[in-house]
Amino acid sequence: MGPHPAVAAIRLAVRRVLHDLLTEHHGATAALPHAPSHEPPPSSRPRSSREVPPPSPLVLVACSGGADSMALASALAFEAPRLGIRAGGVTVDHGLQAGSDVRAAEVVLRLRELGLDPVDSVTVTVGRSGGPEAAARDARYAALDTAAERHGATAVLLGHTRDDQAETVLLGLARGSGIRSLSGMAAVSGADGRYRRPFLELDRQTARKACMVQSLPVWDDPHNADPAYTRSRLRHEGLPALEKALGKGVVEALARTARLSRDDADALDSWADQAEAGVRDAAGLLECAKLYALPPAVRRRVLRRAAIAAGAPAGSLFARHIEEVDRLITGWRGQGAINLPGKVVARRQGGRLVIRQG
Amino acid sequence: MGPHPAVAAIRLAVRRVLHDLLTEHHGATAALPHAPSHEPPPSSRPRSSREVPPPSPLVLVACSGGADSMALASALAFEAPRLGIRAGGVTVDHGLQAGSDVRAAEVVLRLRELGLDPVDSVTVTVGRSGGPEAAARDARYAALDTAAERHGATAVLLGHTRDDQAETVLLGLARGSGIRSLSGMAAVSGADGRYRRPFLELDRQTARKACMVQSLPVWDDPHNADPAYTRSRLRHEGLPALEKALGKGVVEALARTARLSRDDADALDSWADQAEAGVRDAAGLLECAKLYALPPAVRRRVLRRAAIAAGAPAGSLFARHIEEVDRLITGWRGQGAINLPGKVVARRQGGRLVIRQG
Repeated sequence: MGPHPAVAAIRLAVRRVLHDLLTEHHGATAALPHAPSHEPPPSSRPRSSREVPPPSPLVLVACSGGADSMALASALAFEAPRLGIRAGGVTVDHGLQAGSDVRAAEVVLRLRELGLDPVDSVTVTVGRSGGPEAAARDARYAALDTAAERHGATAVLLGHTRDDQAETVLLGLARGSGIRSLSGMAAVSGADGRYRRPFLELDRQTARKACMVQSLPVWDDPHNADPAYTRSRLRHEGLPALEKALGKGVVEALARTARLSRDDADALDSWADQAEAGVRDAAGLLECAKLYALPPAVRRRVLRRAAIAAGAPAGSLFARHIEEVDRLITGWRGQGAINLPGKVVARRQGGRLVIRQG
Repeated sequence: MGPHPAVAAIRLAVRRVLHDLLTEHHGATAALPHAPSHEPPPSSRPRSSREVPPPSPLVLVACSGGADSMALASALAFEAPRLGIRAGGVTVDHGLQAGSDVRAAEVVLRLRELGLDPVDSVTVTVGRSGGPEAAARDARYAALDTAAERHGATAVLLGHTRDDQAETVLLGLARGSGIRSLSGMAAVSGADGRYRRPFLELDRQTARKACMVQSLPVWDDPHNADPAYTRSRLRHEGLPALEKALGKGVVEALARTARLSRDDADALDSWADQAEAGVRDAAGLLECAKLYALPPAVRRRVLRRAAIAAGAPAGSLFARHIEEVDRLITGWRGQGAINLPGKVVARRQGGRLVIRQG
């Protein structure tokens, strides 16, 4: 009898990512192993004493102790040895709740019980920049980066599910800043593609079920139910109401929107890359007539990039700023300079668009 | 003392669209009139007997009797004569509710009282194709097209507000079929840009307020509150819950997403247009190697188009169909033919992608 369907699903998701990592690691295409899982892992095959053992890559799982990342840890612990991969874990103690150190120590124990090695607990100090959720995220990724480098890990697996992705798309939608913000989280991100999200196509319920049938204790972060957090309100009120109005397929539709938007945004960025070189004069200034001839979607991306290159912080540069600069090109009636965030100023001078600081 | 801010807002919105129409009509740029509204309309200026009067364009308003379209009718009645434009109206009797004929007759009276001329009531028969909302919409636009042609109207104004736009974006999001379905309703659409939506940036509350302060009686369509309709559930439950979770700016963010997505989708469509010619061989077949080299976003659009050209009905062709065809290019492992809607079949043969019916 095979494993429970939920366990099979989380293992398959992790096996696919590990296979990708091996392919990249060895720089060659290897077939996805279809062999039954009771076969001995490749690393235990007899090896002649003259052979130099290939470096065995290390993959870490980032684990909060919640259902998603505990399921991920259990699947990594199961699959990694079968592919000759070492599996380790990291838990981050944000120090935001009383007893968070005790919980971190518990997560470490559970990860060791799963057979992961090395297992680290990292304590971080959460700043205030960008709001509580963004500050906690920044601190977490910095700690994970450090842990990955310290252990020489090939990758860090993150437990984000399709439900998290749907929430991220809605958060992006609320910013109204275009399709890049609708593209959610990438399956592969970070320096050298360090971060991988094997569960991005898997629903939260499956991860939770997999923990249950494997008798893995899970921790429910009280933050996830705290209506002070936008994501929590979205999860417990916004998204259920949207599902009630639009039908049960909403989460899947949002996740698909993320994938499609990401590809669309990538394609338009590459177009803007190419277009940018063609709209500058010999002195490197943007020529208004040439900008005018571009499709609006491409022109706005070129303008956004120019503003950022001039020193405008990307996070403070909104669609309405770019629209205003765009009117210097498409609705020119002699208007004055446009002030952008970061003390950047855009003005039209002699058929050129000048964007610079101060 | 000027008009109430809500009335000023609806008039400005209509004036902008009428000005656009005049510019297009005369094929020349005219300045937006800033003259106070008590000036005599241009058409009443003394004219010498030798001058041939220019043809005075006719603009119709589509009016259900609800607040949005009554506000629109009132603004058109006020602005049109000042710009030398004739203003008329059409109301469509869908025959779906008892007494709808009486209501249509009432709307006709109200539009005449506003000074519109001609005013038509058109009775339509609503079919069943595509569900009740789509069938009613199809019948309505067919009737409006006919009315516009019968009267030789330059344009038909529609009362869709920013709130309608936000709902449309969410409905598109629920389909999960990409950014074209996120782009909502266009400000200009239909044959020769016949349909104009002056209120697409205006909120529903402003239209309602403008009716109130002008003492215009409005009719509340019971369909709008009927939870049997997806849009009605979205309006009364989904969107308010989303606003509660994400903040009051959601409607505006959704409307902005629509504008940005429309431009992005247009740009990518034009790229796909251009790319399509380059990926066909001498016999007109799609070359897999050349398709492979395209960005995924462009390739999928080329594939979608090819499927539609081969006879697949656009409305039944979903993102997952195209993804499956795409895997013939990006994940080729000798898989068989892919069945698409409309009995269209896609297969890979000798480095070519063959998409045809039967």
